[in-house]
Amino acid sequence: MSATDERHISKAVISRLPRYYRYLGELLTEKVERISSNELSRRMHVTASQIRQDLNNFGGFGQQGYGYNVKYLHTEIGKILGLDQTYTMIIIGSGNLGRALANYVLFEKRGFKVTAIFDVNEDLCGQEVRGIPIRNSKELAEFLDSNKVDIAALTLPSSGAKVICPVLVAHGVKAIWNFAHTDLDVPEDVVVKNVHLSESLMELSYMLNRQRRE
Amino acid sequence: MSATDERHISKAVISRLPRYYRYLGELLTEKVERISSNELSRRMHVTASQIRQDLNNFGGFGQQGYGYNVKYLHTEIGKILGLDQTYTMIIIGSGNLGRALANYVLFEKRGFKVTAIFDVNEDLCGQEVRGIPIRNSKELAEFLDSNKVDIAALTLPSSGAKVICPVLVAHGVKAIWNFAHTDLDVPEDVVVKNVHLSESLMELSYMLNRQRRE
Repeated sequence: MSATDERHISKAVISRLPRYYRYLGELLTEKVERISSNELSRRMHVTASQIRQDLNNFGGFGQQGYGYNVKYLHTEIGKILGLDQTYTMIIIGSGNLGRALANYVLFEKRGFKVTAIFDVNEDLCGQEVRGIPIRNSKELAEFLDSNKVDIAALTLPSSGAKVICPVLVAHGVKAIWNFAHTDLDVPEDVVVKNVHLSESLMELSYMLNRQRRE
Repeated sequence: MSATDERHISKAVISRLPRYYRYLGELLTEKVERISSNELSRRMHVTASQIRQDLNNFGGFGQQGYGYNVKYLHTEIGKILGLDQTYTMIIIGSGNLGRALANYVLFEKRGFKVTAIFDVNEDLCGQEVRGIPIRNSKELAEFLDSNKVDIAALTLPSSGAKVICPVLVAHGVKAIWNFAHTDLDVPEDVVVKNVHLSESLMELSYMLNRQRRE
């Protein structure tokens, strides 16, 4: 598949790929070799036609009457998601959320290796989380200049995130995983994925209220 | 606005409302009384026509040539999101992620009050996080029977979440904020909002790779 083919794939499809990847991974663990779109549909609670449409975006991996080859599809979706590569990640903010991310061993299994945690609190510097050193935020620029960093996770308050973001950008970080409760202003060649927890909670309260009224 | 009016509002619009709420809250802090869709568009980096379309779903709050009344719009969107009410929330899993949620003072300001944290690790029981007691998971059913719980946040591994979910449902919890890396099987009258961090990270690696190829 060429990069050009991908240009027109909608955000909605992309956002569904990690879920396919998870289910296919579970099937692999269960030693299932192939699966029909109908069976996958039953497991994932999405329509078989949606599954066929989604996977057709990538040239389709299925054969009529045979179903999908689980291992092949898992590998190919992994490649599309970039999971055939490894990434170095730093975490800015060593509070509970930063520590939670640093402790997720699964990320490392998927190829995301956390190499450092930064914090403005000098008392924490020199401590470690799962063997990963907490460094002084003042050393961030120097660290970025002498170490390859693919992804920076921002787990600090909004005000701090706004200060740190330009430093990351100026020193070559191209992907930001932003947990701060603000939108970041970055150049076009930097990608940002926001995880705004309080907004997620508001969506849940909306859903709960609508449900109560029905 | 009646409940019926809301039925046809798309998920996409709903998912954007918390962001409007955040920007309008910031405008209120800046003592801005009214704003045009063009000015809001510039700040939020979405088109003015999208803003008008989104807000028209709720009868529209703007007046031609006057713009939107910031306070009124903020209040009304808050009501739609259910933020004019208060919710009791429990957190299942007292690891870093559970503690991070328990420590977000902002949630309480928005009306989400954490009343208990549960953990299977008996050594942790009796400890507190920001004054909130950690209880033994064995006491969960009894707690739910004698206390009103609107929302349960699941910050424990998938295997634990699958065991705990039926207990929550059987004892009347109607909203689950699920951070476990699995989909939950719940009856129709229970709402679930998933926050799958590893899937969010995969989307980011997809975006980074696409950007690198362009």
